[in-house]
Amino acid sequence: MAVGLAPLPKLHPVAGFALGTACAGIKKPGRQDLVVMRCAEGSTVAGVFTQNAFCAAPVQLCQQRFLGAVRYLLTNSGNANAATGAAGLANAGQVCATLAQLAGVAPRSVLPFSTGVIGEPLPVDKIEAALPAALKNLAEDNWPAAASGIMTTDTQPKGASRQFVHQGVTVTVTGISKGAGMIRPNMATMLAYLATDAKVAQGVLQDLLKGVMDKSFNRISIDGDCSTNDSCMLIATGQAPLPEITAASGALYAALKQAVEEVALELAWAIVRDGEGASKFVTVQVNGGSCQQECLDVAFAVAHSPLVKTALFASDPNWGRILCAVGYAGVARLDTGRVSLYIGDLCIAQGGCRAEGYTEEQGSAAMREEEILLRIDLGRGTCSETVWTTDLSYDYVKINAQYRS
Amino acid sequence: MAVGLAPLPKLHPVAGFALGTACAGIKKPGRQDLVVMRCAEGSTVAGVFTQNAFCAAPVQLCQQRFLGAVRYLLTNSGNANAATGAAGLANAGQVCATLAQLAGVAPRSVLPFSTGVIGEPLPVDKIEAALPAALKNLAEDNWPAAASGIMTTDTQPKGASRQFVHQGVTVTVTGISKGAGMIRPNMATMLAYLATDAKVAQGVLQDLLKGVMDKSFNRISIDGDCSTNDSCMLIATGQAPLPEITAASGALYAALKQAVEEVALELAWAIVRDGEGASKFVTVQVNGGSCQQECLDVAFAVAHSPLVKTALFASDPNWGRILCAVGYAGVARLDTGRVSLYIGDLCIAQGGCRAEGYTEEQGSAAMREEEILLRIDLGRGTCSETVWTTDLSYDYVKINAQYRS
Repeated sequence: MAVGLAPLPKLHPVAGFALGTACAGIKKPGRQDLVVMRCAEGSTVAGVFTQNAFCAAPVQLCQQRFLGAVRYLLTNSGNANAATGAAGLANAGQVCATLAQLAGVAPRSVLPFSTGVIGEPLPVDKIEAALPAALKNLAEDNWPAAASGIMTTDTQPKGASRQFVHQGVTVTVTGISKGAGMIRPNMATMLAYLATDAKVAQGVLQDLLKGVMDKSFNRISIDGDCSTNDSCMLIATGQAPLPEITAASGALYAALKQAVEEVALELAWAIVRDGEGASKFVTVQVNGGSCQQECLDVAFAVAHSPLVKTALFASDPNWGRILCAVGYAGVARLDTGRVSLYIGDLCIAQGGCRAEGYTEEQGSAAMREEEILLRIDLGRGTCSETVWTTDLSYDYVKINAQYRS
Repeated sequence: MAVGLAPLPKLHPVAGFALGTACAGIKKPGRQDLVVMRCAEGSTVAGVFTQNAFCAAPVQLCQQRFLGAVRYLLTNSGNANAATGAAGLANAGQVCATLAQLAGVAPRSVLPFSTGVIGEPLPVDKIEAALPAALKNLAEDNWPAAASGIMTTDTQPKGASRQFVHQGVTVTVTGISKGAGMIRPNMATMLAYLATDAKVAQGVLQDLLKGVMDKSFNRISIDGDCSTNDSCMLIATGQAPLPEITAASGALYAALKQAVEEVALELAWAIVRDGEGASKFVTVQVNGGSCQQECLDVAFAVAHSPLVKTALFASDPNWGRILCAVGYAGVARLDTGRVSLYIGDLCIAQGGCRAEGYTEEQGSAAMREEEILLRIDLGRGTCSETVWTTDLSYDYVKINAQYRS
């Protein structure tokens, strides 16, 4: 029951980046649950990873390897290989080594990714057995199959693509993602892979990715890198006939950054729209803050509140719950008498209480929409932040109560 | 569907403390929704209140008044009188003044309390009209009616009582509470009233209450004082024929503190057991921390995780979700290789991974219990903390999606 999530758009191939899938039968027989991605020699890779202390074995390996020469990315769904200790690390290394051997590259040039249940041993045999098939169907136009291959409780594959022309050369940015859990999805692994055929030095690519994260994946209600497996990768294959991009590349750098940002935001929104049990797509915009951080604190307090989320699910304009969340967000010396609240253009609260002329009927009508904009003005400055989230429905409980059964 | 919540125990009257109820018809006609409590002249009062920036009008008045001479406490359910601005403050003052006039005391000696929907104007007329009836049935043995009168979505009244004998004199501590929401119940007001016939100076009583809070109400999954109306009051009427208690009173002070602590813990547990939609009573005990705060951070991270809570609801021993919550609790330099996890006496994870010999069947059996003890050992020190919480069920969503309709 994804909210307004369109079918996969056209995903433009990225020169030098090929994708292959296979069925390893990790959790369900017959499902394409293994994805191999190959990038051209000389590609640079940027990565952002979970901050969870229990970060999974594949994440640990990735972090050690992604700054070196990367040739393959190996992803399995159905098993997170997290909380698996030394054996988990050995297993992640093992599947990478087998892929490296099959492909004739160094083991260190393979990055592993896993998503699924925590604490179960990685089924190394099943993965190794399926690798040849995945290598066999590597192709640059295979993004849609890969988008499906990385899914867990996602109901739809997620992808986005942009192209721009610089000095007569078309540059492509294409990406896929998976998500699913939406209320503080502590371990609903988020995986995202973006690739471009631009040529970008690693340091520049890394800075670009970090900047983009704070306007996309770090602004959806995934609680601050808290899953064990969250990873977002950006690969630049350098196959487009253009000079290497640096932060000083002016228009070219700006165009690339914008394209990556648009792809990342579309992927992040798709994760929210396909949040577990989601029936609403909710934008929480906080204006009038005295700094960015307090705007973010308020936005996430509202976005994470189970009481706000259940009210959204019920289309109940229970605005007191929203103000209450604003009140406990920890903003120092908040003058509640200056706080106002809007649903879309409808002013609900002003000066900290119900706005004059506001009626429940108006509120109910606004809350019945599938796409809801909550605007909060703190009335104490000029800073703004926006985050995106969903409601909390029966289906969220159902999905998460039954995930393993 | 409260979890193992016994019917109201015998609530011993407290000399000098009388309670009366009446039907004001605030939300539902015919319901006893108004409670008046009268304390003897010379009583001392301690109070702990919400830290929410949108703290309700009655809380603001209480904070101004409770250190003075208090004679009456006036509570209504069905309307929180929160986010109501200057009009809300005036309304709270008005109902107190009316009660003061009827009772022949100073308006400042009346403390107001409200619980219910946020943002609606307090129905002053209805409350004023019902006050004479509540005053008329004031009685020291009226605790059970008062326990029912303060309820909102609670399914059962909550009360606890202790007596001890000092130098031949019986001292009584009796209390009632209301709660309801259980996962970070941002505005599910918690109200608790405890009274004793001991004689205690205000400063001593206040310190005693603060200490008790950190072992009871502040250790249940109510997220750090975040409702708009949370209040916990402790009244000492001084009617027992004993000298005034100070912190230097030795055995007498210790006995009183223990009695208050036992009553507060029983009331706090009752709130958890009657949590909205609760089907499990869950104790989260964190041992082996290097300081209290990190134990608390871990315990609350686990207690607040919707993924842990839905797994508990499903009796699914999805222990990876618990370790994941431990991992994002923000403990600096946590060595996951030293973390272990138990359900009751069953060791599930050791050294950061699944314990040798652990089977899913064992885990499932342990999770099917109605009362569950999760024990986490961080393996880095000698500190411990315990918090109590519930699962997240369909009924939680249902109750909170329908609360106002």
